[in-house]
Amino acid sequence: MADATDTTDPSPHPKSRGAARRALRRGPTIDDVAEVAGVSRGTVSRVLNGAHYVSPGALKAVEQAMRTTGYTVNQSARSLVTKQSNAIAFVLSEPQERLFEDPNFSVLLRCCTQALGEQDFSLVLMLESSADERDRVLRYVRGGHVDGVLLISAHAGDPFIGDLARGVLPAVACGRPAGPGIPYVAAEDRQGAREMTQYLVDQGRRRIGMIACSPVVGGPERLAGYRDVLGRKALKRLVVDAADYSHAAGVAAMRELLAASPDIDAVFAASDLLAAGAIDELRRSGRRVPDDVAVGGFDDSRIARETDPPLTTIRQPLEQVAREMVDVLLRLVRREPASSRLLPTELVVRASA
Amino acid sequence: MADATDTTDPSPHPKSRGAARRALRRGPTIDDVAEVAGVSRGTVSRVLNGAHYVSPGALKAVEQAMRTTGYTVNQSARSLVTKQSNAIAFVLSEPQERLFEDPNFSVLLRCCTQALGEQDFSLVLMLESSADERDRVLRYVRGGHVDGVLLISAHAGDPFIGDLARGVLPAVACGRPAGPGIPYVAAEDRQGAREMTQYLVDQGRRRIGMIACSPVVGGPERLAGYRDVLGRKALKRLVVDAADYSHAAGVAAMRELLAASPDIDAVFAASDLLAAGAIDELRRSGRRVPDDVAVGGFDDSRIARETDPPLTTIRQPLEQVAREMVDVLLRLVRREPASSRLLPTELVVRASA
Repeated sequence: MADATDTTDPSPHPKSRGAARRALRRGPTIDDVAEVAGVSRGTVSRVLNGAHYVSPGALKAVEQAMRTTGYTVNQSARSLVTKQSNAIAFVLSEPQERLFEDPNFSVLLRCCTQALGEQDFSLVLMLESSADERDRVLRYVRGGHVDGVLLISAHAGDPFIGDLARGVLPAVACGRPAGPGIPYVAAEDRQGAREMTQYLVDQGRRRIGMIACSPVVGGPERLAGYRDVLGRKALKRLVVDAADYSHAAGVAAMRELLAASPDIDAVFAASDLLAAGAIDELRRSGRRVPDDVAVGGFDDSRIARETDPPLTTIRQPLEQVAREMVDVLLRLVRREPASSRLLPTELVVRASA
Repeated sequence: MADATDTTDPSPHPKSRGAARRALRRGPTIDDVAEVAGVSRGTVSRVLNGAHYVSPGALKAVEQAMRTTGYTVNQSARSLVTKQSNAIAFVLSEPQERLFEDPNFSVLLRCCTQALGEQDFSLVLMLESSADERDRVLRYVRGGHVDGVLLISAHAGDPFIGDLARGVLPAVACGRPAGPGIPYVAAEDRQGAREMTQYLVDQGRRRIGMIACSPVVGGPERLAGYRDVLGRKALKRLVVDAADYSHAAGVAAMRELLAASPDIDAVFAASDLLAAGAIDELRRSGRRVPDDVAVGGFDDSRIARETDPPLTTIRQPLEQVAREMVDVLLRLVRREPASSRLLPTELVVRASA
């Protein structure tokens, strides 16, 4: 597992001379950043507080100087208000409905709150589902109001990730984000997807489709696992890519799969909610689950026990994901080294496949 | 409606002389507070940042001086980091399960987020369901990380309310809190409860019970409305007081009512979830709704359309409650006067009564 050995260095080493070298020796200050960037202390402070009234050139210089000196905004928070906030932002990159629809989020929220509480940290939940909201969240977290960020359900190419990846604030992603630079905690998505696909093959299924979800974290790995097993048999028209992990997307994707391949006899859906939507659409089309079409999910959330029939799925250990995310993040906050972590999955056989 | 004319003065007038009088003229500073309290500026600052390393005597003196001078921590935030946070805390005094169980909270969260976003404010959600969490939330909001607090579902006697009522931070409660001092936005709970009870009487029901919820905001008013209509007919054994507005509490309360009064022919439940629990328990006991027992709810949330039969209930305009809460709070943040607001309810007749 190459993934498991990924490491992320939370404090990049200074690469320039003078102020940068001094910064390395005793820990960088806001003055070091100003000196390296060739701007005033006030400009650095404005950048840290959300980059209002800062020219693009100065912003770029300050961000470069932060990377060079290894400066983090934590220290800014300390220097401005002489203490840490002792709070962590739980940033959900989804519309609010998804927070309430998908039980995975409530498990993550509960377990992160608990693990942070044990270390006397508060959790503040922020939603970013529009560009405006993203700007506000970014301004807030960079303003010294939190000591780190738990990035939940980040989408591929999310600019939020890019900003945090610049090392301005400690951050940990849930699931493997598309870009480099942010440590993450994830289930072994690819291995789990292989196991489910192989199980469907072993049950004698011959036309196994997939409802993938490549725009969202975990999605590309689950699709890759399906392809690992089926190879060239994974025909293009047997794969539909959903926009998110929701029930509605599962209904729409199943409809598309049935139209393209009416003789499909199994579906692997990349989340339990997608699978629940697929089951509903299969019933609407007059097909029996699992007799006519077997359905496999991914998550083993509460949903898997509520579908009719109950869902055969891949369990990802979300409680442990949450605890490990908090552990990695608080190490980064304390300026200790920490790397990404991958946690094993497990096939849970119920009645749908 | 005497309630509608309640006013709450967000900036108590200084009552002492000297520094306090000067504070009144030009707006109090941290130095005014220190002078009135007879402590150092640093002690005041430590109190504002969570009262670490402050003696009980000094804490009391500083809090008294804040009341006397009308000082608010907003100004501390400004003076410490030279800007507002432009964020508002949405503090939910409930266990996390309740956030996900009760659709009222998602409506409030969505509408508050939107109304705040229109004013370029972030919303940060914090849960306080234990004494430890309450301390952390209090420390965070008093640390200058938010400009105000939306208090959701505060319970009677919640110490959080007492702390905010001291005028340390602008705050608005959802529903009428038990204590004085915090402005609130609420539905006309008592009037709505009167209307439901009268409706049940008009339907010819003779033994009308109530599942009340006096520990949580809105609860005492709804019970009072029921009593307004039934007067002495509201026998004690026809009223059960639930601990919260949940489905589980509704099941338990209905069981208790049936044991005490097997001939009960109607129930008014103080929330839709309580009513949904009551309907489930009535079915379990072999009674038909509404034929044997009519059931009325309160909220008109999504739940009211999902029960079987659909629920006759009192609609409270939660979207408007959320918008008005944000309006009142941002007025207080801008140090403008603002008072409590009461919004009208409406009887919605469906099939359960």
